[in-house]
Amino acid sequence: MIFITGNSDKVRELELILGQKLETRDLDLSEIQSIDSEVVATYKAQNAYNLLNKPVLVEDTSLAFIGLNGLPGALIKSFLQCLTLQQIVDLLKENREAIAKTCLAYCDNNGVRLFTAEILGQIAKEPKGEKGFGWDSIFIPSGQNKTFGEMEPEEKNKFSMRQKAAEKLKGIVF
Amino acid sequence: MIFITGNSDKVRELELILGQKLETRDLDLSEIQSIDSEVVATYKAQNAYNLLNKPVLVEDTSLAFIGLNGLPGALIKSFLQCLTLQQIVDLLKENREAIAKTCLAYCDNNGVRLFTAEILGQIAKEPKGEKGFGWDSIFIPSGQNKTFGEMEPEEKNKFSMRQKAAEKLKGIVF
Repeated sequence: MIFITGNSDKVRELELILGQKLETRDLDLSEIQSIDSEVVATYKAQNAYNLLNKPVLVEDTSLAFIGLNGLPGALIKSFLQCLTLQQIVDLLKENREAIAKTCLAYCDNNGVRLFTAEILGQIAKEPKGEKGFGWDSIFIPSGQNKTFGEMEPEEKNKFSMRQKAAEKLKGIVF
Repeated sequence: MIFITGNSDKVRELELILGQKLETRDLDLSEIQSIDSEVVATYKAQNAYNLLNKPVLVEDTSLAFIGLNGLPGALIKSFLQCLTLQQIVDLLKENREAIAKTCLAYCDNNGVRLFTAEILGQIAKEPKGEKGFGWDSIFIPSGQNKTFGEMEPEEKNKFSMRQKAAEKLKGIVF
């Protein structure tokens, strides 16, 4: 199985969760425009499989703001390209609730299988912590008082949507 | 040439501009995640051509807020699915400048050719006018004092980015 990603942070995190090294490949695959990680990951997994003709794993993680009716969701990548984390935080008004979702899509000759997990959280009023990547420093998982960016990798993984999705995958594909 | 769209408003508007009926087809094609209409339209035109093996025209229109460093751009479709126009307007703070861009992508056996035009404008503080479609009621073209939604089709076309892009296409493809 080849993990298709160009994001070394995601490789490191998934290897820590799965407890094994992953063969990775950075394919320049288009992502489709959808706020839904399951749609994005399914399309990408199918494309990667068609290209390599080997079992592939792709990952898409979304961040849905309840106050923006689900935006940015899987469009968070474009938001991070255009805006600073502080600018993203400032899009919100009173409602700071968010859902972080990871979808792992595995594709082999039987088609695509999805392993999805989501967690609730709050968006911080300003970025805090430098330990994570992406939007880790603005996301406070529900019931906690610090952002993913303020947590060591092992602590983050206790709460993380990526951990929960990977656990589902682990039980079935490996 | 087949105009690939499921948006009857765009068909009506383009037919008015080009002064002729268009053969249309609504293909369920994926759009890629990019804020840039040229990227989105190129990909879609190539896909449509590969599918139909006939000359095709696709259109993508984006709305870039200067105050959001280009967002939503071509992601405006997802914004319109998630948010009301008032909610979109409320994402902006002081800077209400925007660039509306239409990219027409024509694809035949010589590959893709792009016909792009953009215009400057301001985002209204609230939606006004019911004459247009999409985000017409929040966009005031530069130098004007009403939104596209408050203009009759002929008046809108005098200023519209879609008109300017279509004029370029008209000179070459037809």
